[in-house]
Amino acid sequence: MYFVKVYVTYKESVLDPQGQAVKGAVHRMGYEEIDEIRIGKYFEIKVAKGDRPVEEMIENICDKLLANVNMETYRYEITAMEEV
Amino acid sequence: MYFVKVYVTYKESVLDPQGQAVKGAVHRMGYEEIDEIRIGKYFEIKVAKGDRPVEEMIENICDKLLANVNMETYRYEITAMEEV
Repeated sequence: MYFVKVYVTYKESVLDPQGQAVKGAVHRMGYEEIDEIRIGKYFEIKVAKGDRPVEEMIENICDKLLANVNMETYRYEITAMEEV
Repeated sequence: MYFVKVYVTYKESVLDPQGQAVKGAVHRMGYEEIDEIRIGKYFEIKVAKGDRPVEEMIENICDKLLANVNMETYRYEITAMEEV
């Protein structure tokens, strides 16, 4: 069993209006120290051990389904888990 | 300057229908090894150094704005960054 965490964020060059809006709200709460907020998606994926390499599978799923690769970028962490 | 990563996820006891739907799509792509997908939100926050403790500020912002604490839980990582 593998436990995979995937983080999908806008590319640096892409404006994040939702993040801007949240930053405005945070400032109105009185937290002027907040300089920037960028919002992304986070996926926790459990993968059963199989014949195929997990990295390839995850990259394929990200490219085709989880991320819009035109505007977004992703990174992932794979942890092997012992069955109990 | 601090760089804070916040992860907001549904509590374990809360169903994640969006994750279920994505799991279905992944299975239809032929990746039957995927056992579970849970979807959350991910925030990258830049905080200027100030007088207030960052932890307290971030927890307050999460509780009041970023997470719905009835259904969601959050965790965060704070990294101190050198100004260049």
